[in-house]
Amino acid sequence: MLPLKEAIRPTTFVVSSKLRDHLGLDITIATETFQHTGSFKFRASYNLALNVPNEEILTASSGNFGQALAYACKLLGKRCTVVMPETSAQVKIHAVRGFGATVDLIDTKKVGRNERVAELAAQMPDAYHASAYDDEWVIAGNSTLGDELAGRGFDVVLVPVGGGGLISGVVTGLCRNGDTAEVYGAEPLLGNDAARSFREGRLIPNETEPMTLADGARTISLGNLNWPIIRDGVKDFIEVSDEKIAEAVRLYYGLVNLKSEPTGALTLGALLEQPERFAGRKICLIVSGGNVDPAVYCSLLG
Amino acid sequence: MLPLKEAIRPTTFVVSSKLRDHLGLDITIATETFQHTGSFKFRASYNLALNVPNEEILTASSGNFGQALAYACKLLGKRCTVVMPETSAQVKIHAVRGFGATVDLIDTKKVGRNERVAELAAQMPDAYHASAYDDEWVIAGNSTLGDELAGRGFDVVLVPVGGGGLISGVVTGLCRNGDTAEVYGAEPLLGNDAARSFREGRLIPNETEPMTLADGARTISLGNLNWPIIRDGVKDFIEVSDEKIAEAVRLYYGLVNLKSEPTGALTLGALLEQPERFAGRKICLIVSGGNVDPAVYCSLLG
Repeated sequence: MLPLKEAIRPTTFVVSSKLRDHLGLDITIATETFQHTGSFKFRASYNLALNVPNEEILTASSGNFGQALAYACKLLGKRCTVVMPETSAQVKIHAVRGFGATVDLIDTKKVGRNERVAELAAQMPDAYHASAYDDEWVIAGNSTLGDELAGRGFDVVLVPVGGGGLISGVVTGLCRNGDTAEVYGAEPLLGNDAARSFREGRLIPNETEPMTLADGARTISLGNLNWPIIRDGVKDFIEVSDEKIAEAVRLYYGLVNLKSEPTGALTLGALLEQPERFAGRKICLIVSGGNVDPAVYCSLLG
Repeated sequence: MLPLKEAIRPTTFVVSSKLRDHLGLDITIATETFQHTGSFKFRASYNLALNVPNEEILTASSGNFGQALAYACKLLGKRCTVVMPETSAQVKIHAVRGFGATVDLIDTKKVGRNERVAELAAQMPDAYHASAYDDEWVIAGNSTLGDELAGRGFDVVLVPVGGGGLISGVVTGLCRNGDTAEVYGAEPLLGNDAARSFREGRLIPNETEPMTLADGARTISLGNLNWPIIRDGVKDFIEVSDEKIAEAVRLYYGLVNLKSEPTGALTLGALLEQPERFAGRKICLIVSGGNVDPAVYCSLLG
């Protein structure tokens, strides 16, 4: 059982002169696309599976968290059950099963994810029910990325935001290292609950799951544990249209040779929304993950 | 004017547990997709432009070398002319022009590249005519990648082969650092002049430009300067079918989140051709570059 910092892969820093010249900005990319299972979620899920005493872990996830948790549980010899919609991409279902986890497929028209998780939790009283973002172990796991970014002289760090697990971890990690970089959240305009919550100073959920291209950010609300860290530690939020998310995916492809999933491209999308805002500053863009179906990816590349 | 080792970006090492598990092999990827201009060619071209006394450099290239040389010349304040077929992808022509180079477009049905370069060379007597591989400065530039691979405990290093500039550089760099890793060339089966030359012990060219998917390896022959280094320093060659090249591009996409061009995927393709050959050994796969048109890439992802 490796400790967290030995189990994770360090983030990959990429500097692209083509991207810098294209936007006229001093950009460094910190990409988690080469993290285990292809997204930052492994930091969170390994830390969680390592530290909770339970031998079985239950979660609902159609995406990166389920895969990362399944792999972490495989490494740590724990059992894992992932509730997924039966409409999930086959490649994602196979990936979770490939790591030895049990996949519980549901028809979301007949039963809600939370409802099904509650049913399963009742059947598995010894299992830990893991949230992908609203969990102390998750935030602590993600804070390792903040540690890696600290001390590099960044003026601003832009972070993709869904449930707020990554950005609250990054704030935590930077802060404890005494790094005063300003942290900005990049959120889909179509699911802008975090931006609205931040402006109002209180948690405001989306009314329904937002159907943004950034499928990793289709969350109803920030988590309760993430909220105070975000409220007090984030400088501002930038809302990114799906058009700019798609343009960012294309720019990464064409100028950087970086395969990013739409959610990962939120931060470059934020620069495209407000190109003047960070002029003259040393910018770090976090790319949260790279897992995207070929059909979706190729439709974006056009 | 930065010295070579400060101008280049260090190679990016990627370890993918999914790829390791898929093949059951101990694989480390050294990818040049994040090198300046997206391929290892910047190492060669910067070193060349830095060291030749000429203020103007002339080359023929439809691909990565032209772009890399144009960028190196821009950085070093030299003039650059690149002969390209008029059928080259617009994105490549734009990239070369974007770096301030002169693009000389030719109709390859009417005039050969070498013929046109000879014409231009006569008109520009002070220009240095740069080969993309058969040049001491090119080999020395590429040898910096060998330096970066040395001392990491690799048992075998697999290198994509076209004209032989990269593999002769890698052999040179490893050797001068006292690293005894075995170096293997990965070459398209459709253009297997290097493999045939190696077996026969003498340079044997392809009869025509081989129409392999690996467009960076559509060379007629190894270079005269590369040949003795390859003959004496390479362990063996593996010929890779276009089908395995395409499969390797897909595996990088699906398992590694790595955008590789077909030529870059030759080395993984070599493992797919001979999966048993390197079992139990610590393998380094060099990915030479990532520049590939979206339409070609998406047709490969299928």
